Amino acid sequence: MKRILTGIKPTGYAHIGNYFGAIRPAIELSKNPDFDCYYFIADYHALTTLKTKEEFEVYSKNIACAWLACGLDPNKVVFYRQSDIKEDFELNWILCNVTPKGLMNRAHAYKACVEKNQEAGFDVDNNVNMGLYNYPILMAADILLFETNLVPVGLDQKQHIEIARDIANYFNNKYKKVFVLPEEYIQKEVQTLVGLDGRKMSKSYGNTIKLFGTEKELQKSINRIVTDSKLPGEPKDLDCTLNKIYKLFATESQQAEFDKKLAGGLGWGDAKKELFEIANNYIKPMREKYDYYMSHFEEVEKILHDGAEKARVVARKVLSDVRKAIGVEK
Amino acid sequence: MKRILTGIKPTGYAHIGNYFGAIRPAIELSKNPDFDCYYFIADYHALTTLKTKEEFEVYSKNIACAWLACGLDPNKVVFYRQSDIKEDFELNWILCNVTPKGLMNRAHAYKACVEKNQEAGFDVDNNVNMGLYNYPILMAADILLFETNLVPVGLDQKQHIEIARDIANYFNNKYKKVFVLPEEYIQKEVQTLVGLDGRKMSKSYGNTIKLFGTEKELQKSINRIVTDSKLPGEPKDLDCTLNKIYKLFATESQQAEFDKKLAGGLGWGDAKKELFEIANNYIKPMREKYDYYMSHFEEVEKILHDGAEKARVVARKVLSDVRKAIGVEK
Repeated sequence: MKRILTGIKPTGYAHIGNYFGAIRPAIELSKNPDFDCYYFIADYHALTTLKTKEEFEVYSKNIACAWLACGLDPNKVVFYRQSDIKEDFELNWILCNVTPKGLMNRAHAYKACVEKNQEAGFDVDNNVNMGLYNYPILMAADILLFETNLVPVGLDQKQHIEIARDIANYFNNKYKKVFVLPEEYIQKEVQTLVGLDGRKMSKSYGNTIKLFGTEKELQKSINRIVTDSKLPGEPKDLDCTLNKIYKLFATESQQAEFDKKLAGGLGWGDAKKELFEIANNYIKPMREKYDYYMSHFEEVEKILHDGAEKARVVARKVLSDVRKAIGVEK
Repeated sequence: MKRILTGIKPTGYAHIGNYFGAIRPAIELSKNPDFDCYYFIADYHALTTLKTKEEFEVYSKNIACAWLACGLDPNKVVFYRQSDIKEDFELNWILCNVTPKGLMNRAHAYKACVEKNQEAGFDVDNNVNMGLYNYPILMAADILLFETNLVPVGLDQKQHIEIARDIANYFNNKYKKVFVLPEEYIQKEVQTLVGLDGRKMSKSYGNTIKLFGTEKELQKSINRIVTDSKLPGEPKDLDCTLNKIYKLFATESQQAEFDKKLAGGLGWGDAKKELFEIANNYIKPMREKYDYYMSHFEEVEKILHDGAEKARVVARKVLSDVRKAIGVEK
């Protein structure tokens, strides 16, 4: 059985891009009996970007309830909050001491900041905090602490796993072989998730559809989908944004039927109504669970607490091996 | 009552420079009833430079026994090992997120490496690890976690306290006022401690006198003190290395007497014998205690463990305040 680990950064409300791109595939994965899944809320990674205590509380709560509402089964998945795993931060410090600074200089997120600063004519480290810069080391600790075999990643996150593997090798070579070397698990390509304006759905573009907004909010978002100015009766482009979003929620036969209607001249207003219907039907049962968890958060806290207890059994063992290897523990 | 905190980095055997420059003044300080003293073995700071598990074990053990042998009273001082304070590493990560990278770029230890690399024509970050680069943040955590008022420092370490204060301010301003702002406690000037060759006594020059070597080792070190070639009968320079080291161990009247002898032409061989006598008499009772602790290390471990328990009462309270301020705890 392979251990597979994923962190979820609570930096905003879950949107349907998160759902189809990350939450649903991860939950599917957890049903595979070959995998022992560790999924965690990476709240201490979110600290780098969150501005206030209130954001931190709201997003952490939202994301935990969202994953459970979407079907994460805490009996199948060890589900926990990063901030509950004290061993993670001790390991983070130990790993710092085997990590060459050059490795951090090459990390994508940091390099992107440097380039942005250079273009603007600022000091390269303008507005960079040490949470951002050290991020790959804590991520290595997150992974290595649990003897992780596989980390599901999109292609743009491959570097994180490479860095974790590099750090593991530095440690194993300096002291002794303690760490399992993690590998990336590239998930089969999810269709690109477009947002309301046709660009990639992303919080930073403000073009998302909130996963667990009210029905009214869902309706409003769908009404904002950008269309062309074709009139009812005129055939519509099947490659349009609205149809791409429709397809996410539809079965194959529903997709074929909707294609036919669009080609046959379905008006945008009616098309939006149909999209609302199918999306709302899809989301509704999950939204009910979400609302339940949000108003019974003590149950979620218990789940996360139990998950942390399970996770820490492994974490304590690995950290103890690390401490023995460096000489701090007998 | 002011809380005063000092970290002791176990990167080598204690030598007499450490004793007169750091250990003795710190122990004097702990007898002052105005101060509530927290002294800790900064073993996780030593990780940056130590190459092996064995070094780590030996030096950590040596330094703990040395401080106790020199008179540290665990009933007066909260004496603990950094690696036992789990709260320190969580706080370290939290502080990363309020620390601008520019602040780290200006830290003396890092800048010294950069300059050395530039002179050698290497990449600025050649051979720099992230333990060294992040060092001032962990040091800030060490200090802030215990509501420290004062940190005894030499002039060259003033920057560490300034950085800790900066980081405390960043946090207090972003969230709420949680941290006490530490100040430096400049100790009254200790005479410069010269080594066997007349340069500053320093492990990196290989010119130290081990504090708790055997009598034979002490004798050997003293024999290595560099002198001029004046013959017995010729008056000696009172400002010589040998006399400077002699003065460390001598009372004022002993100093005056020895000055007289040197001026009167005491031979170097006899002078070295006299230095050995006075040094050995000074060190002997402490060496006996040291040998006792080294062979009863379980007693030392108990002292350190009890110290950590006391320290963690404060650490848990402060970390909990921090966690509430950022929103991870209710």
